[in-house]
Amino acid sequence: MPDSFQEIDENVLAPAGFVAGAVACGVKDPKSTRLDLGILHSLEPTVAAATFTSNRVKAAPVRLSQTHFRNDDVQAMVVNSGNANACTGLRGLEDAKAMAKATASALGLRQQQIAVCSTGIIGVPLPVDRVLAGIPGLAGALDARNWPTLARAIMTSDKNPKMVSVRCVIGGKPVHISGIAKGAGMICPNMATMLSFIATDAVIDKKTLQAITRCAVEQSFNRISVDGDMSTNDTAMVLANGLAKNREIVTGSGAAKLFREALTHVMLTLAKKMVRDGEGVTKLVEISVKGAASFSDAQKIAEAVANSSLVKCSWNGGDPNWGRVMHAIGYGGGRIREELIDIYFDGLVATKNGLATDTPIEEMKKVVQQESFTVGIDLHLGDADYTVYTSDLSEEYVAFNRLEYALKLR
Amino acid sequence: MPDSFQEIDENVLAPAGFVAGAVACGVKDPKSTRLDLGILHSLEPTVAAATFTSNRVKAAPVRLSQTHFRNDDVQAMVVNSGNANACTGLRGLEDAKAMAKATASALGLRQQQIAVCSTGIIGVPLPVDRVLAGIPGLAGALDARNWPTLARAIMTSDKNPKMVSVRCVIGGKPVHISGIAKGAGMICPNMATMLSFIATDAVIDKKTLQAITRCAVEQSFNRISVDGDMSTNDTAMVLANGLAKNREIVTGSGAAKLFREALTHVMLTLAKKMVRDGEGVTKLVEISVKGAASFSDAQKIAEAVANSSLVKCSWNGGDPNWGRVMHAIGYGGGRIREELIDIYFDGLVATKNGLATDTPIEEMKKVVQQESFTVGIDLHLGDADYTVYTSDLSEEYVAFNRLEYALKLR
Repeated sequence: MPDSFQEIDENVLAPAGFVAGAVACGVKDPKSTRLDLGILHSLEPTVAAATFTSNRVKAAPVRLSQTHFRNDDVQAMVVNSGNANACTGLRGLEDAKAMAKATASALGLRQQQIAVCSTGIIGVPLPVDRVLAGIPGLAGALDARNWPTLARAIMTSDKNPKMVSVRCVIGGKPVHISGIAKGAGMICPNMATMLSFIATDAVIDKKTLQAITRCAVEQSFNRISVDGDMSTNDTAMVLANGLAKNREIVTGSGAAKLFREALTHVMLTLAKKMVRDGEGVTKLVEISVKGAASFSDAQKIAEAVANSSLVKCSWNGGDPNWGRVMHAIGYGGGRIREELIDIYFDGLVATKNGLATDTPIEEMKKVVQQESFTVGIDLHLGDADYTVYTSDLSEEYVAFNRLEYALKLR
Repeated sequence: MPDSFQEIDENVLAPAGFVAGAVACGVKDPKSTRLDLGILHSLEPTVAAATFTSNRVKAAPVRLSQTHFRNDDVQAMVVNSGNANACTGLRGLEDAKAMAKATASALGLRQQQIAVCSTGIIGVPLPVDRVLAGIPGLAGALDARNWPTLARAIMTSDKNPKMVSVRCVIGGKPVHISGIAKGAGMICPNMATMLSFIATDAVIDKKTLQAITRCAVEQSFNRISVDGDMSTNDTAMVLANGLAKNREIVTGSGAAKLFREALTHVMLTLAKKMVRDGEGVTKLVEISVKGAASFSDAQKIAEAVANSSLVKCSWNGGDPNWGRVMHAIGYGGGRIREELIDIYFDGLVATKNGLATDTPIEEMKKVVQQESFTVGIDLHLGDADYTVYTSDLSEEYVAFNRLEYALKLR
């Protein structure tokens, strides 16, 4: 059987040797049974890789986990939702360490082998006692079938859990990669308010895994935008436990290329699910810039269009307003020649050489009224391209985000 | 009487020797009587200065007016609303030239002495015949008392006309500066979708006027933001006709300093009116960053906070969500140390050393629920500061901007 990969039923989260679980410990609401504490644990030693937010304000668990990934091979992860443990100072760092310590103790690991993640409101101290009280019982009840439960426990304003699995064949051996993620508000290039946990049974060299993870994140989680904001807590991690017993994947091999493609597929699938499930989102829009004079120009222009409030409002209305796309192209900061620019809605040319075409407005409206479409921009200046995935901007987004802090403290 | 300036009744638009007028020519709607064509004319020779959008997609009238301001002293301005004449190619440029030519002919000036401005929808050819048909009658009926009419004619989605006048005393002589402006959507640092026309009877050296205009624009129109977008048509111009007969204002003098302060006051007053009148705006918020390590750091951080959708939604809800302010500070790109940051809502300290304070939430809510307040950010790293004026983000903004192009072409 030749090397290949394919997506498999998302409910079959398959890598052997990983167990998971989640409980309600009372962070989201002391009185409710909403899941808000989870653990993922590899029963075998791992090689591990992770990327973190580039926001200069980093939550305590991010700072702690960065150290752990630098110094050790992380073998388990503990996560709470409902509170980001961000802007919480030294106390926040102590709370994150206490979460790592309690998890390590319950699983028989060293503290440095535990990654800690938090997501939720910023600037409110973590109710750490409730978290610590929940960890021993949870750690004792982990199970390979509990991934979907973990995927639900990390949700904040997400409407749906996000999961995907692929099976690769590498050197004749089946290799599995499974991932879960949470997204919703504050989704932006260079990491969304997102957490993503990916497990694989591949045998892979550590440096190779780190390089492939960086590359796959750049092609997926760093290419999505809902509201242009960037969170304090973003974390994506990949743990590989080697149980597939394939020949070790090393840099430069065909197997490494296939593994990179498969991991990118997992991450991009999760990233698109995040956009679709963003707060108040009704549309998934692909912005595809080509013909730019440089990669950086293409990126600036794609992100300017993806983050323009005016452009996003027009999509919400199903309005093929290519003039607003032009104005965002113009302020993006990349080199352009207005008279060379073509703009497409899916296959329909709305703008040719910077000018309106005679494509009927009714046909273009049909495209923009879809739940998913592509805005193609050809700058005709060079060979560089860049693609981002974004959403519309809706009244529901605003309504959703008007109140949070005051309600939380009431 | 010492040199000084004070604001005067905005309805007294006073500089001698300027006449104005406006008519309905049918650009906004062929069947309506909505004003959409205006002229401002100095009966005397002028010195003139202007600044234009930094968007790389520039409307035809911007390109034409830039040439006219470079080569000549502009003595009159013709403006239409309802159509931006942007992304309209060679035809757009011909249309702008035709507007200049018709106005010059009607007023007995050279074509190069006419500035042309347009504001409205992008990408739709200007109905230039209607504009040209309206110019001769309008040019024959200009009057010093018609400034308020002109202020209404340049409105697009503005709810109110915007005017302000100041009277200075310079070397014992009264000198007047009067301005009108339009704003609304696409308001962003580095020029809003804004037009501003300012007239003064000052005697002033041309280079001095140009330098003071650039400086005043930087301190006013470049400091406002509603939705982070930047228009293709932004223009601010100052015409000075010398009828005040003051001693010529030259660079470096006390008179130049006073004139700069007065012109900045006029522009900043208009700029704040634009924010308050922005699409769906319910609040005017001043973001004041101090203690930054550099001017550029202060600017990046102030603009990141001012343009964060999540922060702006919280203001709309009257929610003192300082955690979202922190996260925007963090991704702004300026140097920070999280543990040194203080955040204030008006005089109330919400965040001290990067952490929540015990200021009661109810008191902070009272500030953020006001129609106007200041968010103060002290980075405690250096001496640089920067202030921007911005708005909240409302459901009304989205509702307003969902549909434009499709409706216009129906």
